Amino acid sequence: MSRFITLEGIDGVGKSTQARLLAAALRTEGHDVVLTREPGGSTGGDEIRRLVLEGDPDRWSAETEILLFTAARRDHLERLIEPALEAGKVVVCDRFADSTRVYQGLSRGDLCDKVDTLHNLMIGREPDLTVLIDVDPATGLERAKGREGGEERFEDFGMEFQERLRQGFLKLAERFDYRFRVVDGNGTPDEVAAEVLALARGALA
Amino acid sequence: MSRFITLEGIDGVGKSTQARLLAAALRTEGHDVVLTREPGGSTGGDEIRRLVLEGDPDRWSAETEILLFTAARRDHLERLIEPALEAGKVVVCDRFADSTRVYQGLSRGDLCDKVDTLHNLMIGREPDLTVLIDVDPATGLERAKGREGGEERFEDFGMEFQERLRQGFLKLAERFDYRFRVVDGNGTPDEVAAEVLALARGALA
Repeated sequence: MSRFITLEGIDGVGKSTQARLLAAALRTEGHDVVLTREPGGSTGGDEIRRLVLEGDPDRWSAETEILLFTAARRDHLERLIEPALEAGKVVVCDRFADSTRVYQGLSRGDLCDKVDTLHNLMIGREPDLTVLIDVDPATGLERAKGREGGEERFEDFGMEFQERLRQGFLKLAERFDYRFRVVDGNGTPDEVAAEVLALARGALA
Repeated sequence: MSRFITLEGIDGVGKSTQARLLAAALRTEGHDVVLTREPGGSTGGDEIRRLVLEGDPDRWSAETEILLFTAARRDHLERLIEPALEAGKVVVCDRFADSTRVYQGLSRGDLCDKVDTLHNLMIGREPDLTVLIDVDPATGLERAKGREGGEERFEDFGMEFQERLRQGFLKLAERFDYRFRVVDGNGTPDEVAAEVLALARGALA
């Protein structure tokens, strides 16, 4: 059974909302669901998240940042995701390794191979189902701007960069087509949620 | 010219003292010296150091710990070591990647290959000269115990473990014999310092 479900996409596509709605819907259907997110998700992972995301955006190089995100992911995987899966629970995770592949790999193209090698070496786990919520960057940026919160570093690069990120996610969806499903994120939250739930049901069947 | 000098050895062999004495002696001889240490050494590296070394010793797995140490090292290398070397300075560093090889690699033998792969992928730099200060664990432990400081987690494993670590360092000295020199650490600090200085002069000649 495929119980490790991740949501991916650029900022503002509604990943967090959809993760929450999906977890609630699956609980209604009788599943024991752990809802989590990256970076963070575990106590140690959250501490590393703060180290990376707070303060001067230039204080870590791309390489150091990848190492820190991978450390946070390793902690999250060991302490929360794997124990939950082993206990038969469904794990719904807002962002996972694909976000590192896109954000770190694409902002510095020469790092793509390093991100993959590091992932295979220290993480080695892929989700069973990854729902990519796809919207055009104008919509995503508009939504992200309307939101509270200080973690705007990745949202601050403008439209062209967002479009490159979006294309990065769509490329990953081709590369990992066995687990990626692309959902049009332009509908209302409820419309999108119905599609996401249908995909999750398929994976859990 | 070989200007990146590291000191290694188990706890209590006098690495910090020797690093300080070496930096002072080289300055007297007209070198521009940066004295630093790991984990830590840079602002970011020190923040990661605190994350790893403070709190419950079991709060990170060996794998996460390796990733965090490597992130700290990458930051240290980029922000302090490489700029100093490029500016023609001598860098004297109390511990570097060899400590990760021994401490993380040997406390969980199956991790040796991962430590090496990760190092080659994300660090890729070895010192020009590594001085291994070698004493028997009884002496080292006695000295370490006499010292102030809360970072005792690695010193708390008893004699047998210290001897395994010592053998781990001696093995590295064989493996990297082109850069390792072993110094008997049983003499007085001044006696040891004279030997270390002679080796450093050789490297800087």
